[in-house]
Amino acid sequence: MPRILRIAAAQMGPNQRADTREAILARMLRLLEEAAGRGAQLVVFPELAFTTFFPRWLLEGAELDGYYETAMPNPAVQPLFSRARELGVGFYVGYAEMTAEGKRFNSAVTVGPDGTIIAKYRKVHLPGSVEPRVGDRFQQLEKRYFEYGDTGFPAFRGPAAWGGPVMGMLICNDRRWPEAWRVYALQGVELMVIGYNSAAYDPNGGSTENEEIRTFHSTLAAQGNAYMNATWAVSVAKAGDEDGSGLIGGSCIVDPNGVVVAQAKTLADEVVVADCDLDACRQGKEKMFNFAMHRRPEHYGRITGQTGAEVTV
Amino acid sequence: MPRILRIAAAQMGPNQRADTREAILARMLRLLEEAAGRGAQLVVFPELAFTTFFPRWLLEGAELDGYYETAMPNPAVQPLFSRARELGVGFYVGYAEMTAEGKRFNSAVTVGPDGTIIAKYRKVHLPGSVEPRVGDRFQQLEKRYFEYGDTGFPAFRGPAAWGGPVMGMLICNDRRWPEAWRVYALQGVELMVIGYNSAAYDPNGGSTENEEIRTFHSTLAAQGNAYMNATWAVSVAKAGDEDGSGLIGGSCIVDPNGVVVAQAKTLADEVVVADCDLDACRQGKEKMFNFAMHRRPEHYGRITGQTGAEVTV
Repeated sequence: MPRILRIAAAQMGPNQRADTREAILARMLRLLEEAAGRGAQLVVFPELAFTTFFPRWLLEGAELDGYYETAMPNPAVQPLFSRARELGVGFYVGYAEMTAEGKRFNSAVTVGPDGTIIAKYRKVHLPGSVEPRVGDRFQQLEKRYFEYGDTGFPAFRGPAAWGGPVMGMLICNDRRWPEAWRVYALQGVELMVIGYNSAAYDPNGGSTENEEIRTFHSTLAAQGNAYMNATWAVSVAKAGDEDGSGLIGGSCIVDPNGVVVAQAKTLADEVVVADCDLDACRQGKEKMFNFAMHRRPEHYGRITGQTGAEVTV
Repeated sequence: MPRILRIAAAQMGPNQRADTREAILARMLRLLEEAAGRGAQLVVFPELAFTTFFPRWLLEGAELDGYYETAMPNPAVQPLFSRARELGVGFYVGYAEMTAEGKRFNSAVTVGPDGTIIAKYRKVHLPGSVEPRVGDRFQQLEKRYFEYGDTGFPAFRGPAAWGGPVMGMLICNDRRWPEAWRVYALQGVELMVIGYNSAAYDPNGGSTENEEIRTFHSTLAAQGNAYMNATWAVSVAKAGDEDGSGLIGGSCIVDPNGVVVAQAKTLADEVVVADCDLDACRQGKEKMFNFAMHRRPEHYGRITGQTGAEVTV
């Protein structure tokens, strides 16, 4: 039986710092309705979908705390969970997580069509810095506001109604790290879902990158890693001018050949949909990227044996 | 001082099984002359440049043995080494190697402008099979004809005349394996040189791939890995209809953003040239892909801990 899953990338336009939770959730509900109306079974929302990308600001106290969810779901986001369940649609959504012990993570959950959380992931590759950069209007303080994810990269099985795909979650910067994809691929991943908030300039303080090249990088990372791991990839932005700081768009659905089959054209709320044949992963997994036949881990030692680059020649 | 190295990708058209060594070498000399005439300091030739891609045939005895080089250089290829030295041009070239102990490898060397071999590499990711596939006209018998490379992925320093780049070599199928690139990147690679012979159909016996998608894969692998490892990549084909079997072209020079800056347009002997600013690697290496700041090897254990995919969910 063909395993064809209709997936929506629900790109979001900006969430301004002044926007209420209710206004943001209402937009997400509209995206959900549109996606469901177009037959999507799984809707992928961005990273930190319920809030502005607050790591661009040096914050403390009540405003900072207010960006974290202390439970998932919770009353503020329950309408999304409830409506998705009514529609029989699952979703991926990213959010800032505060645990009962006070630990903070940049997290995402995948929710099944019955409204239950199937899997949770905490972002491993936190970009940015702990200390703010002096003189910069916009910061990238994820290393300050979050702990490194402690989940590793745990593949999970999507529901039978979706064709039972082996799935993985990544968040934003993770998608640029081939190690993350490979760890999932070594568990047989067929569908990678990813949300992001990526600045339209270099958030690390460089001066050589603009919106065009950064959108290209984002799409290229999804394409290259989808191909080399023989998996579908759905990579979804929060985009546009958020609090005066630009975010790239380019949300895309990429097939296991690395071909972009659908891509957002705006920097606003926008749904793009594709039918994803999960069995299209088989060609890569059984032939070119038959890992058991072709990988040579005895030569990969540096990947786990060292962290930084070591130039010795 | 800017470190700008002018590099030529010297794509070769097909080497027919019936072609003499002299005829093939004469074509390589013409490519070398053209590249040097256009100011190239480094010329990248394909994998198995001196012969046809003989792993497509089930061979034995004298014909098979005749495809291997028992020394490098040797009288048959000396004219290439000599002329390159006269021109003050270095090169990368792939060849079938037979050691004094009778071991066979799919190898490549990088030769400096003074004619000396700077570094040698033996292909780690051998595709194909040991046993021929019954009923197929064309085989992929690299696993039969070569041992797995025993060099690992050793970065080396290019000559001062080239700006002293940290370099790495890959051969063909290696370029599709992000582990190979990463091991080099963990040694600071700034310039990856690669030769390939890639079939225009699926050499593993699948039926879903054609020349277009396979050329796309080849370019995408160079782009995605160049970007994610913040390195230049020069990836060069033997192309066209060789012994009745198609080989893709698409030889390309890719910058550390993953952007193709030059690409061959034919399936024949063709030189493309680009000025490669080695310091363009710095943005990636110091910011987004600052490995020491951002990698999390504690979560990469499967990459070295297992070979094949293990689906357990």
